[in-house]
Amino acid sequence: MYALVSDLYPICRSITGPGVRETLRRLQAHVPLEVHEVPTGTKVFDWEVPKEWRIRDAYISDTDGNRIVDFKQSNLHVVSGSVPISQTMPWSALKDHLHTLPDHPEWVPYRTCFHREDWGFCLRHDLFERLDAQGEQSYEVCIDATLADGSLTYGEFYLPGESRSEVLFSCHVCHPSLANDNLSGIAVATFLAKHLRQQPRRYSYRILFIPATIGAITWLSLNQAQTAHVEHGLVLALLGDSGHFTYKKSRRGDEAIDRIVEHVLRQSGSDHSILDFEPFGYDQRQFCSPGFDLPMGCLMRSANEQFPEYHTSADNLDLVRPRYLAESLDACVAITDVLEADRTYLNRNPYGEPRLGERGLYRAFGSVADGARAQRATLWVLNLSDGHNSLLDIAERSGLTFHEIRRAAHALIDHELLEECPDGNEHAQPRQSAGTRINQLEKL
Amino acid sequence: MYALVSDLYPICRSITGPGVRETLRRLQAHVPLEVHEVPTGTKVFDWEVPKEWRIRDAYISDTDGNRIVDFKQSNLHVVSGSVPISQTMPWSALKDHLHTLPDHPEWVPYRTCFHREDWGFCLRHDLFERLDAQGEQSYEVCIDATLADGSLTYGEFYLPGESRSEVLFSCHVCHPSLANDNLSGIAVATFLAKHLRQQPRRYSYRILFIPATIGAITWLSLNQAQTAHVEHGLVLALLGDSGHFTYKKSRRGDEAIDRIVEHVLRQSGSDHSILDFEPFGYDQRQFCSPGFDLPMGCLMRSANEQFPEYHTSADNLDLVRPRYLAESLDACVAITDVLEADRTYLNRNPYGEPRLGERGLYRAFGSVADGARAQRATLWVLNLSDGHNSLLDIAERSGLTFHEIRRAAHALIDHELLEECPDGNEHAQPRQSAGTRINQLEKL
Amino acid sequence: MYALVSDLYPICRSITGPGVRETLRRLQAHVPLEVHEVPTGTKVFDWEVPKEWRIRDAYISDTDGNRIVDFKQSNLHVVSGSVPISQTMPWSALKDHLHTLPDHPEWVPYRTCFHREDWGFCLRHDLFERLDAQGEQSYEVCIDATLADGSLTYGEFYLPGESRSEVLFSCHVCHPSLANDNLSGIAVATFLAKHLRQQPRRYSYRILFIPATIGAITWLSLNQAQTAHVEHGLVLALLGDSGHFTYKKSRRGDEAIDRIVEHVLRQSGSDHSILDFEPFGYDQRQFCSPGFDLPMGCLMRSANEQFPEYHTSADNLDLVRPRYLAESLDACVAITDVLEADRTYLNRNPYGEPRLGERGLYRAFGSVADGARAQRATLWVLNLSDGHNSLLDIAERSGLTFHEIRRAAHALIDHELLEECPDGNEHAQPRQSAGTRINQLEKL
Repeated sequence: MYALVSDLYPICRSITGPGVRETLRRLQAHVPLEVHEVPTGTKVFDWEVPKEWRIRDAYISDTDGNRIVDFKQSNLHVVSGSVPISQTMPWSALKDHLHTLPDHPEWVPYRTCFHREDWGFCLRHDLFERLDAQGEQSYEVCIDATLADGSLTYGEFYLPGESRSEVLFSCHVCHPSLANDNLSGIAVATFLAKHLRQQPRRYSYRILFIPATIGAITWLSLNQAQTAHVEHGLVLALLGDSGHFTYKKSRRGDEAIDRIVEHVLRQSGSDHSILDFEPFGYDQRQFCSPGFDLPMGCLMRSANEQFPEYHTSADNLDLVRPRYLAESLDACVAITDVLEADRTYLNRNPYGEPRLGERGLYRAFGSVADGARAQRATLWVLNLSDGHNSLLDIAERSGLTFHEIRRAAHALIDHELLEECPDGNEHAQPRQSAGTRINQLEKL
Repeated sequence: MYALVSDLYPICRSITGPGVRETLRRLQAHVPLEVHEVPTGTKVFDWEVPKEWRIRDAYISDTDGNRIVDFKQSNLHVVSGSVPISQTMPWSALKDHLHTLPDHPEWVPYRTCFHREDWGFCLRHDLFERLDAQGEQSYEVCIDATLADGSLTYGEFYLPGESRSEVLFSCHVCHPSLANDNLSGIAVATFLAKHLRQQPRRYSYRILFIPATIGAITWLSLNQAQTAHVEHGLVLALLGDSGHFTYKKSRRGDEAIDRIVEHVLRQSGSDHSILDFEPFGYDQRQFCSPGFDLPMGCLMRSANEQFPEYHTSADNLDLVRPRYLAESLDACVAITDVLEADRTYLNRNPYGEPRLGERGLYRAFGSVADGARAQRATLWVLNLSDGHNSLLDIAERSGLTFHEIRRAAHALIDHELLEECPDGNEHAQPRQSAGTRINQLEKL
Repeated sequence: MYALVSDLYPICRSITGPGVRETLRRLQAHVPLEVHEVPTGTKVFDWEVPKEWRIRDAYISDTDGNRIVDFKQSNLHVVSGSVPISQTMPWSALKDHLHTLPDHPEWVPYRTCFHREDWGFCLRHDLFERLDAQGEQSYEVCIDATLADGSLTYGEFYLPGESRSEVLFSCHVCHPSLANDNLSGIAVATFLAKHLRQQPRRYSYRILFIPATIGAITWLSLNQAQTAHVEHGLVLALLGDSGHFTYKKSRRGDEAIDRIVEHVLRQSGSDHSILDFEPFGYDQRQFCSPGFDLPMGCLMRSANEQFPEYHTSADNLDLVRPRYLAESLDACVAITDVLEADRTYLNRNPYGEPRLGERGLYRAFGSVADGARAQRATLWVLNLSDGHNSLLDIAERSGLTFHEIRRAAHALIDHELLEECPDGNEHAQPRQSAGTRINQLEKL
């Protein structure tokens, strides 16, 4: 995954334009994702698809023609979405268009101006101070960019499973040379897709590679009916740094995905934070808007705005490490493992305990300590498999891992002591989305 | 309010009689409350309206005619409800009728004997000891009081609002020269009434100025049908001392009034205590009796029996301070503000976020920090306005103040992004009182 | 009770056979329990009643004929369930059949081998080491036992009450000379039965004296229909040692028995532990299997496996003390007192408070402090007796004891202020057992 991050790092992505296209093209070498183009001006709910921003060059040069700030050295130097400019101007006028980080004088900030007509440059604060000390000088300022009709580009990878019910993963693809924010999410999502392709699947899976906000709104607008099939989902972001896992819950806070992620992180034994839902941050704010209210959480390591390198040039290939990417992928795989395997079973011998010893069920597993845990798992599965408790319920109540509980369940199935519950995997009551209620109320 | 407390302080109030009448007459200078007279002997549930106690004079004098204990100096000196007496008696006989506070030798206690035929005097313990040291002397004891048919007097101020649903406030008016217990409650209730008169009102408001226990029982007995309209209520008492706020919850403990008072006190940032309901203390014990089970809490500063000056001469005009009265009134106003403004709205653009920036909704508010909170408030209101959450729900879940949430909601209404929920302000299920159940069971 | 424990201590009990029979015979001197014999081979759910194990003698002797390990000295010396053997064998072969406790060299462990064909001896570890030091010697090994068709024996004592609804107590009777595990439970159950016989009873009571596991399964199999009447129950075990009380909750964890035991233990003021249900330990694992899901907890002092003397010769007549047995019986009596007395009443004067003073209800009780608590109890009972709260509910909410609440209720009944609630003692919804659901699902 780190190689993929490195490969994508230099590309200048933005909300729209060639950077996103090139990124998606390279991902297609890993998974056959479909690339969609949505024309500028398409109405998507309260919004419309914006013009496409293309940038070729941008710099500030001194009167000798030396490039002092150069887009070609780092695409962070130009404020993303800047309107074109080509002008000579004095320091006093230029200054207002410059962005720096006084607390981190060697870092270049990442700034955008998509929603207003403006332009600007980002640079190191120490360079800014040097220029400022030189007083009123003249500079040539050039941003060779166009903002013109085109399209919004996103990638979508759909993996059908036994059921049309789907699990939705989403990551954003609109940030330029920032490694953790968003390349780590892209890499983990891509390799998760590669993994899932090779697995038998009860659920269908959909993985979106979309520009933040407008991309999510666009996808939702074009796929409104499809969202009814989403039973679980995760926004993936910031998955490559050394921070511990952070999980932000779904809007309702008690969805299956919330319980599953919490179980997986708790059983991992490592530090982690569970945060309540908030309607800001990544694209949960769109997927969990009240008209959709999708059961989606957000998995991160360090949370957005909570680490100093966030949205700066220090979010680079040093901040992201292969082992953290691997850990993040493992967590995602563990989560989908639970999603796939969690079912409700029925004890076929519910009156008293069955004779486990005679069936060799006490000797089925390795070491003594493991054997004691396996025996407890077996007794818990038998006791709680009354049609009301799924394997995850049993894991949570027993304090054992989902893996141990599932292994015990499979051994019991092999001995015909357990069977799948006829209606145990359907919700007693279909999940009513907040949107349904809004629709009902709108009809009044 | 302090001036009102000072004005009412000297009056000798009791459960019935001229003291209450004079008190209510003076309150009429502030709000046009109605004064009701309920004749002695009227049956009110398990009770009947008592005879009226009128006192003219009371004293203990020595053989030289010097008044040693004199009702005219402080109406606390005579046990409230004493039967008349005029007699010369030795110290040894008189002693049994004297009440003091050995732990506070300079304070005079407040005592009553309404429910038994008795008489007595209250005095400073140091004076008692001096008299006791003089040994067996003869004293003239006089209580010039009558207990005769008359009426029970209470005041009622009703402010109609858009809806017949009403908010009931109640304070007691039966204590003599005690400033915190009950004049502070009377003053806050009176000024709250003055404030509410000048406000537009969704709810109707009823404010009772009643003798404790028998007054509440009398009002309930005469207004049994009316209680069905009470949707929220508060007993007001002990609101003038320096103690922090104490809120005693309603009988059910999860009424709207409970949540609102807790929110207001929490958002005030100052120390406060939330106590569970108990069927003793002020008139909650009547309003929350199971046949009525009204959704009423009790707002106090120091709780009854929890401060040393309680029911003593030290509960005087020094114990009550203008700033604490003002704080208490502010809290009541904040509570009624939430009651009036709490509604459920619908996001009119529930699919994804609307374009807030284009509508200027990100720049609507003052400072930067305030702007960030306002933006969060806006996103919370949009996200949770699905017909299930009122503004108070949103304030509680977001951790923002009700005021911030309401301001955001109003800005969204102005931009046609929010509308009132057609059925959001009615309870899905009508509140079934405990009394209803009792009635049903009685019919079995 | 201690005398009964001492009397039963020497008997060599096992899952089946003469030890259990002799034990039950001696209990019949205390209560007229019925003794049931279930023939070997009877199918009981997934199991069948085993052959009967009878042991006459067992020893290891040296070549001089000296008995080194002798069943006649302690029945713990032979592994319970051993197959017969009579053989001379070298130390190296014998060794594998010996069990000791290296951490407690002076104690003899208790071991069983019912579910596999094996034999063995248990002995002190210091003796084992002495023999081991002597090197390869020859020993005569004799276990004079038979495993033959016979029956499984259990005792059952049924006490009819006003209602067929029953309370089920169960203790196990299959352990040999271990005083706490199981004689303490047998003694407490026996004396509880003696107590209950002399009480008026709303509930019927059933007390089982059964071999662990197979005994419980056998009883359940033969009495499946009867289990529908079990409304509350307790497994009794380990009730004679100095440890504080341990209560393991029922499978659902919120049954009436759970609340009652917790209330009684909390009100006792002494230390105690409340543990969540686990499907291991004593016969809760059978009674609470999902097909039955009986509302039964388990009352112990020290929990099984949690004290060093557990299943060793140190669980003897010194470990169990008369005062702890008495305390345990008291707790059981207190629990049945609450079970019998807990009812729901209706306040007959629910509108405001009734005049308690006039009825002498404020003076009904002894000391001042007691009087204040009694008065609070009276007000709580009146306030909450709306048909929704039982006396236990009121005790829990008020923080007063069940005894105080019941006494207040009885005084109010005497004054015709309270009456029994017509439907208050029936569950609004009949308790659906997990088994019912399983049956429904099986029919699909």
